[in-house]
Amino acid sequence: MDPDTVAKAFVEHYYSTFDTNRAGLVGLYQDGSMLTFEGQKIQGAQNIAAKLTSLPFEQCKHSITTVDCQPSGPAGGMVVFVSGNLQLAGEQHPLKFSQMFHLMPTQGSFFVFNDIFRLNYA
Amino acid sequence: MDPDTVAKAFVEHYYSTFDTNRAGLVGLYQDGSMLTFEGQKIQGAQNIAAKLTSLPFEQCKHSITTVDCQPSGPAGGMVVFVSGNLQLAGEQHPLKFSQMFHLMPTQGSFFVFNDIFRLNYA
Repeated sequence: MDPDTVAKAFVEHYYSTFDTNRAGLVGLYQDGSMLTFEGQKIQGAQNIAAKLTSLPFEQCKHSITTVDCQPSGPAGGMVVFVSGNLQLAGEQHPLKFSQMFHLMPTQGSFFVFNDIFRLNYA
Repeated sequence: MDPDTVAKAFVEHYYSTFDTNRAGLVGLYQDGSMLTFEGQKIQGAQNIAAKLTSLPFEQCKHSITTVDCQPSGPAGGMVVFVSGNLQLAGEQHPLKFSQMFHLMPTQGSFFVFNDIFRLNYA
């Protein structure tokens, strides 16, 4: 499968999991995984899932605007760059966000090694 | 030097070069380097520099809002995620942008292996 197809499939899976079963995101990270969320650094699948499930909103819906990806080197990883809108329940206007993932191969699939998330405050 | 210090120094160097001597950016890329600029894929230092120097504006000024970085794996690279504003000469309002770099070590320094740039159309 070509990298763009893999990246789009990953992104759809990631955000639909985020929007419907946030705790399920734990399975996409490993112990060495890193998340920087609005500047806060978190390491390890359990800590990352704890952060994401404790964000101060119950329901949200991500809408993807762009997905770009490139192979990240000989180890078979890829970098994925996403921009989109995040609609929080009860808020009138969506928030713009940008997020990058560095995916690494594992047992025929990929896990998230690097994850950096920023709101753009449009 | 800690990764955050390296990332900030790289980012300052990159954008000051972009704003004052865009052709000089060629030295930050290598033959295997990739740029995705607003969805357009370009490979190789010469092609990337040709793209950046042919952008349809003469003068610009980048202002950085956030810089996040993480080590990208055992090969000694790092991912750097930037958000900021891009002021074009003659335009009233700056454009918001997000950009990610994957830096890889080379001879005591770093070069850009992956580069993805997007305007946020705020």
